[in-house]
Amino acid sequence: MNKDVYAKIEGYMLSCMKDSAHDREHVYRVLYNALDIAAAENNVDYDVLIAACLLHDIGREEQFKDPKLDHAEVGGDKAYAFLTGQGFSAEFAEKVKSCIVTHRFRKSRPPESLEAKVLFDADKIDVTGAMGVARTLVYKGGVGDPLYSLGSDGLPSSGENDEKPSFFQEYHFKLKKLYDRFYTERGREIAEHRRTAAKAFYEKLYDEVENTYGNGKILLGELLD
Amino acid sequence: MNKDVYAKIEGYMLSCMKDSAHDREHVYRVLYNALDIAAAENNVDYDVLIAACLLHDIGREEQFKDPKLDHAEVGGDKAYAFLTGQGFSAEFAEKVKSCIVTHRFRKSRPPESLEAKVLFDADKIDVTGAMGVARTLVYKGGVGDPLYSLGSDGLPSSGENDEKPSFFQEYHFKLKKLYDRFYTERGREIAEHRRTAAKAFYEKLYDEVENTYGNGKILLGELLD
Repeated sequence: MNKDVYAKIEGYMLSCMKDSAHDREHVYRVLYNALDIAAAENNVDYDVLIAACLLHDIGREEQFKDPKLDHAEVGGDKAYAFLTGQGFSAEFAEKVKSCIVTHRFRKSRPPESLEAKVLFDADKIDVTGAMGVARTLVYKGGVGDPLYSLGSDGLPSSGENDEKPSFFQEYHFKLKKLYDRFYTERGREIAEHRRTAAKAFYEKLYDEVENTYGNGKILLGELLD
Repeated sequence: MNKDVYAKIEGYMLSCMKDSAHDREHVYRVLYNALDIAAAENNVDYDVLIAACLLHDIGREEQFKDPKLDHAEVGGDKAYAFLTGQGFSAEFAEKVKSCIVTHRFRKSRPPESLEAKVLFDADKIDVTGAMGVARTLVYKGGVGDPLYSLGSDGLPSSGENDEKPSFFQEYHFKLKKLYDRFYTERGREIAEHRRTAAKAFYEKLYDEVENTYGNGKILLGELLD
């Protein structure tokens, strides 16, 4: 890809994400993950891949304002309009759009092209390992969800069977389950390399709160009469 | 302490923190940590300690609304007014207030009584280990700070010499430095036991982003012409 073309697409991405430094750095990580994955594949269309990575989350703000909207669909449409408006061919814009529309998991629309599969895996890698934990906690802080819920015994629940949203629930319902669902070998390999960091953090945090509440409730019970 | 007295003080704490589940569970963890620490000390006044733990953060909302206010001072005053209003002696209310005022680190007002030192350490333990990491990330998410800043080379900065706020900066400026400043032996011991969890998480996250940007920027440079 030509540097000027890259700068033009990057500039549009930045203009769509001016309110979120988090989302911007996520975009670069996804691009870099995608290039790592693509290096192990043959016949990658790098122009499509780079454009799709840069633009994959440009529909985020629309979904944030109206949660009924799907940022993948909105982003695909915005990318198509931007690219054709800038003189890229309809065929190229359609390929980029298709990657963006399928980057968000929906059973009904799996990623089909190689570039779409690479973007899908690259995006998912950013939810694995320590980064997945960090992004989930930052998100939970933003929406005000707790770290854990208390069970009927008053002790912190592991999250494994929780219905109420919490960091522990998210770990069991999403973070720990990601690792089998990669389309590319290199994607799976990067994710696997990060896996223990997420598991170790969850287990340490659960251990800390379990000990704190467990010991504390016994000591408090002995002191109250 | 009598169960009814505990319930009365707890009820007041809950009424002051009805808007924040995070802060409420923090209060219980601090209480439980304090009882663990106190079990290794002699001549602890448990009535003062339990009341001070339950009420130590009741000034949070005032400080949140007006950052010039100090939640430790506001909380101390509120606790004194509540306790004397409920018929506790001025002497008891004063002891509780003193613990609350000094639980927030200020060079000019170190904790003096044994109960104040236990509360100080118990509160600090909740910033150590995996819990310290989790609470910091949740806080960063709430205020919109990034996980890391980029250096002049475009690579993620370790945070060690950063001026701009980020999770990595907070790790170096606060989280990693906590462990030497405990008043009690048991407090230091609990913190030390948790220390590696925070360090391991920071190192894993830094490793992930350093590799992602480092490899990605090289690969991208090769693809742009």
